[in-house]
Amino acid sequence: MAATRAYLDYNASAPLLPEARAAMVAALDAANPSSVHAEGRAARRLIEDARRDVARLVNARPEHVVFTSGATEAASTLLTCDWQMGRGAIRMSHLYVCEADHPCLLSGGRFPAAQVTRLGVDRNGIADLEALTSALLAHDKTEGLPLVAIHAANNETGVIQPIDRIAGIVKEAGGVLVVDAVQASGRIPIDISAGYADYLILSSHKIGGPKGVGAIVAQADLMMPKPLINGGGQEKGHRAGTENLPGIAGFGAAARAALAALEHIGAIARCRDEVEAIVRKLVPDAEIFGAASPRLANTTFFAIPGIKAETAQIAFDLAGVALSAGSACSSGKVGPSHVLKAMGHGDSLGALRVSIGRATGVEEIEAFRAALAGVVARRAGKEKAA
Amino acid sequence: MAATRAYLDYNASAPLLPEARAAMVAALDAANPSSVHAEGRAARRLIEDARRDVARLVNARPEHVVFTSGATEAASTLLTCDWQMGRGAIRMSHLYVCEADHPCLLSGGRFPAAQVTRLGVDRNGIADLEALTSALLAHDKTEGLPLVAIHAANNETGVIQPIDRIAGIVKEAGGVLVVDAVQASGRIPIDISAGYADYLILSSHKIGGPKGVGAIVAQADLMMPKPLINGGGQEKGHRAGTENLPGIAGFGAAARAALAALEHIGAIARCRDEVEAIVRKLVPDAEIFGAASPRLANTTFFAIPGIKAETAQIAFDLAGVALSAGSACSSGKVGPSHVLKAMGHGDSLGALRVSIGRATGVEEIEAFRAALAGVVARRAGKEKAA
Repeated sequence: MAATRAYLDYNASAPLLPEARAAMVAALDAANPSSVHAEGRAARRLIEDARRDVARLVNARPEHVVFTSGATEAASTLLTCDWQMGRGAIRMSHLYVCEADHPCLLSGGRFPAAQVTRLGVDRNGIADLEALTSALLAHDKTEGLPLVAIHAANNETGVIQPIDRIAGIVKEAGGVLVVDAVQASGRIPIDISAGYADYLILSSHKIGGPKGVGAIVAQADLMMPKPLINGGGQEKGHRAGTENLPGIAGFGAAARAALAALEHIGAIARCRDEVEAIVRKLVPDAEIFGAASPRLANTTFFAIPGIKAETAQIAFDLAGVALSAGSACSSGKVGPSHVLKAMGHGDSLGALRVSIGRATGVEEIEAFRAALAGVVARRAGKEKAA
Repeated sequence: MAATRAYLDYNASAPLLPEARAAMVAALDAANPSSVHAEGRAARRLIEDARRDVARLVNARPEHVVFTSGATEAASTLLTCDWQMGRGAIRMSHLYVCEADHPCLLSGGRFPAAQVTRLGVDRNGIADLEALTSALLAHDKTEGLPLVAIHAANNETGVIQPIDRIAGIVKEAGGVLVVDAVQASGRIPIDISAGYADYLILSSHKIGGPKGVGAIVAQADLMMPKPLINGGGQEKGHRAGTENLPGIAGFGAAARAALAALEHIGAIARCRDEVEAIVRKLVPDAEIFGAASPRLANTTFFAIPGIKAETAQIAFDLAGVALSAGSACSSGKVGPSHVLKAMGHGDSLGALRVSIGRATGVEEIEAFRAALAGVVARRAGKEKAA
């Protein structure tokens, strides 16, 4: 893209960090990490170094990190009835997800649809903890354990779920908690050792690493899901297939950088607040979704009354500003946001998401201001004409 | 690795081709291909260009290529009872694999173990077609269709299976044929449009592309396996998750290069023949496995009587020559080769695999000759001492 464009869509994919790029390029010529010759052993070291860096980001033990091809594969792996404890089988009989979860959790992974319950969120995007408590109370443990999967922070609104309280509820009920930390990792501190979750789902490309790599991080490795991908014994038998070496090396470097950048998150929050000040000034009747909740410092999700979000998104794109109307829609088409629907705003014309990061600066903010002013001027013109 | 090392382990992982490296580096900064802004559309184009190049390698239609995180994921996706034809369900009731297949086929993917039958190979490594015919004759079609999965060329011996005849047998029986073309693609011509297979499994890093990417290629897309990884609607709903963009771009470039290189395969064959001439000269009692069968031009798999393959492999490694004892063992440990066992050579001390490619030249061959001479000298010394 030309340098004149402003990229404000970090939650769809964060630009590759220079550190991650360097690590990837350095790993491009690596051999098969399962080979026993010197070339293979050097490749193996790259993976184990990255495993240590990814573990550190969430204060886990390196041996509890399983690399996957991304968060979606990690979710499809974890969301299954069939778990293993050593050679023994453990059954999860029901999955509880949240209406505002990412589609990879909402899909239920390997659970049959009849064994998945969706819990709601309030108008501020916070999960309904009473409904979770009731659902887990009603769960029939003779059939198997309850598995709860929820996002730590929402990809559209940035709303942060009260995971500590959710973890308490799940623990009390004797269940297992999977936390989708894809958007939260690198943006809020996460410490799995402190009981934050039993399993975390991570994605590399949301923290400035490459696409095509993610991880399952376990608090302990006593119990693991039946592997999704079978073949060789890679990743201690939890995930077969030759490892995506440049991807993993890039993920490790991005995790290291993300951990270090956590202390500068205040600067990103100030930048986001400036975006919201611009929105409030130019669109006094704008609604910012989830603003009453704790949110990620880098995200804002707002509606401009009278303008369809998809239309506005195209206008921003033509003005050189990349942002999104809802999340990146995988089909290439833009549909209504299931997150807004879950929050009770299904009747809106959609919303625009601005999500920023380390490289966002004054130029991008000014480009956003100018583009928004254009959109607002057109709205005013239409109102006059009507 | 130092330039003085000789890498002769292409079947474990081929060195990244310069073309693939350039394509990857060019794709490193690409956005999320599902985003609708200009950055997202540019990323989408990179994927569709790569899809066209991968399709061309096996004469398929681009729309019949589904990118995966590698061959193992492709196998776990294809090897399932549950298939879909539009919105309808199709059942495969039994899986027939070959004893000499790669572990990702032998694992049976998502089939329960009781629904998997392994067919043998002869001493030359060729699949037992009579056994296949009988098994398919005995298959009870009221339960579902038979699914046959077999490798086109063996990763250890390089032996090429008579896929045309196998395809005829499977078609006659009304079954579905999955061909693991991981080692064959780019080394022998493959034309899926001519009825070679119903589905192909491809891997990028065996043809000089990056690790962490592969593909399912279908002859037609009427019938597809139930997705393994669920979430967003990427890859037309056949495989969810943000695409591994640099990996896919590198795979495309490698496929283009591999197709062009097919006409130079004779040079690689001459190089391999020279390796075998060296083996026969220095080790007159060496056994070359599969030599009586059609083989890939780049592979030789031989035993040195009286020397354990693992021991010899370490000696080669110390002498600066990277080759393997059997296939790259995913656990980092070296076990007995299941391929040799299947061929009736389970009592041997294992075998050494030399697998070469486009960049293999005189220097590598001379390094191999010197290292083999050293191994043989030590064997002679031991025999004298004994």
